[in-house]
Amino acid sequence: MNAINRQMTLRRYPDGMPRAEDFQVIEGAVPDIGEGEVLARAIYLTVDPYIRVHISPSMSVGYAPTTPLGAPIPGEAVLEVVRSRHPEFREGDLVAGFGGWQDYCALKGEGLRKLDRGLAPLSAHLGSLGMPGLTAYAGMTKLAEAEAGQTVLVSAALGGVGAVAGQLARIKGCRVVGVSSSAAKCRWAVEELGYDACLDRTAPDFRDQVAAACPDGIDVDFENAGGEVFWAAFANMKAYGRVIVCGLISDYNADAPPPGPDQSPNLLRTIALKRVVMKGLMVADFWDLRPRFLQEVGGMIRDGRFKSREFIVEGIENAGLAMIDMLEGRNFGKTVVRVAEDPLL
Amino acid sequence: MNAINRQMTLRRYPDGMPRAEDFQVIEGAVPDIGEGEVLARAIYLTVDPYIRVHISPSMSVGYAPTTPLGAPIPGEAVLEVVRSRHPEFREGDLVAGFGGWQDYCALKGEGLRKLDRGLAPLSAHLGSLGMPGLTAYAGMTKLAEAEAGQTVLVSAALGGVGAVAGQLARIKGCRVVGVSSSAAKCRWAVEELGYDACLDRTAPDFRDQVAAACPDGIDVDFENAGGEVFWAAFANMKAYGRVIVCGLISDYNADAPPPGPDQSPNLLRTIALKRVVMKGLMVADFWDLRPRFLQEVGGMIRDGRFKSREFIVEGIENAGLAMIDMLEGRNFGKTVVRVAEDPLL
Repeated sequence: MNAINRQMTLRRYPDGMPRAEDFQVIEGAVPDIGEGEVLARAIYLTVDPYIRVHISPSMSVGYAPTTPLGAPIPGEAVLEVVRSRHPEFREGDLVAGFGGWQDYCALKGEGLRKLDRGLAPLSAHLGSLGMPGLTAYAGMTKLAEAEAGQTVLVSAALGGVGAVAGQLARIKGCRVVGVSSSAAKCRWAVEELGYDACLDRTAPDFRDQVAAACPDGIDVDFENAGGEVFWAAFANMKAYGRVIVCGLISDYNADAPPPGPDQSPNLLRTIALKRVVMKGLMVADFWDLRPRFLQEVGGMIRDGRFKSREFIVEGIENAGLAMIDMLEGRNFGKTVVRVAEDPLL
Repeated sequence: MNAINRQMTLRRYPDGMPRAEDFQVIEGAVPDIGEGEVLARAIYLTVDPYIRVHISPSMSVGYAPTTPLGAPIPGEAVLEVVRSRHPEFREGDLVAGFGGWQDYCALKGEGLRKLDRGLAPLSAHLGSLGMPGLTAYAGMTKLAEAEAGQTVLVSAALGGVGAVAGQLARIKGCRVVGVSSSAAKCRWAVEELGYDACLDRTAPDFRDQVAAACPDGIDVDFENAGGEVFWAAFANMKAYGRVIVCGLISDYNADAPPPGPDQSPNLLRTIALKRVVMKGLMVADFWDLRPRFLQEVGGMIRDGRFKSREFIVEGIENAGLAMIDMLEGRNFGKTVVRVAEDPLL
């Protein structure tokens, strides 16, 4: 094969908010495949907040070793099979798998899932029907314990996780209050995703708005943001409320704790006094839910109760910028990068 | 009745650590009782960390309205019935109820529980068999989800709550690591209460000691202290560990958040990455457990598997000092104040 394998890599580790010059496209070889493997070409790459954690040496943890400089940035991708040495896959199959930010990848067949061509646009398989969607589904069905009539606050309300968490809560009969980063996005959240209210976190009276939008308090804070957004929600938690700590976008660029005062005693005190329960959410604990998730959320997409919106950026060379835009809230929906023609468009 | 009702009251609200001159004994009238009430005379008064919360206007919350200046400080007491207008109680009965820091109180019969004279010293009914014991029992049986072989860390290991939490964990087959405030107390925790290890939080290498004593990490942090002790434990939490936020002694004297850096992002990040669950514990949620608690822990005391140790201070005039000593860790076991002759001694 004579094709070139463009790979979006790190030239250096970001110091705080990533900058364009932290990233670099290099040209690598198209990999060979062994028995049981598949060579696949990327159509869509994912751009998710958690990727920021993977490119920060100071945040390296067991589950997320830091991406080496010069290696493609990791992440799920929508792929087309180019060559297969696995009995279940053949050329032309559309699949999702952990290909990373590059044109070509060699993956074991076991790590791939075939995509349903009729269900939704291919890009949705990195969002509502992908890892972010499964994350939201796991959080809402396994951790949040939300009941009809309860108030659920969802930060990053249009994001890959948030849009699914918010819609699942709405379909369950909860009162759903979103938080996003512009008036236009908030309007879209209410009009298209069915949030009962959505608040612009950049408004000067944002904290008051949260209190006003949740007059009876918050039963579930589905936390994707951290920082000021978290505290605005936390100040309004109901007794026995649950905080699902899923993402902390506001915190991912910080290499050191922010200045004082130290709010952790406030946090502990509120947990004790209000019996608020805080739980961490990581999708890796919930792979076994995927079939049920795809069936349920797929069904909701099919019958029109559920909407998916991706923010599509063109070209692998723009993947780093797309991540910066997402971290700064300039995206509008779940960010994906298109790196090859979408055969379904 | 011609007796005098000594009442230990607040002269002013403490600013930080309470001082002797914040408290004042006044002489009040012995109250009258109405139908269904009981007049009781205190034998033992309780001195618990949570009382600090009750005497701080800045910490007033629904469940704990601030004690008015000049009113007796609230708390459970061991009492002898002096006069009864309730069919279930008669003169001479020994009971426990929320009498507060005073000699005489009028209480509704429904709020009292009769004490088993043969089970344990009367003072134990304010500790291992009282509200602190029930708190620990609820935390260990309903929230901690500790299993045999797991590591449980208990701060304030000799305190009213801690000594019960630690012994219940030990009896369940857990590895139990205590934290206390002197080498002598730690020795006692290991030799008498059966902790597997107990660490002196005043040691300069305390943090390293926690890590060394919990080589596989901590499954349950039964948190009674907060502050540095909490962080030493939290740094060693295992994935899926539980933090039971019961008490925050280190924090009760603070009227403002401590200086930075702000550790709350670290806290949230660890919850997300390790899926640590944080739960608040308040005994008021668990009154219905009392019969089972008294039967189980009473049985353990009877058969010698369980030890109770109270730190007895003489005289109501010393109750304020006893509280200061407790907050500074100079007590040795659960603090109670004896204000009248104990009929069982």
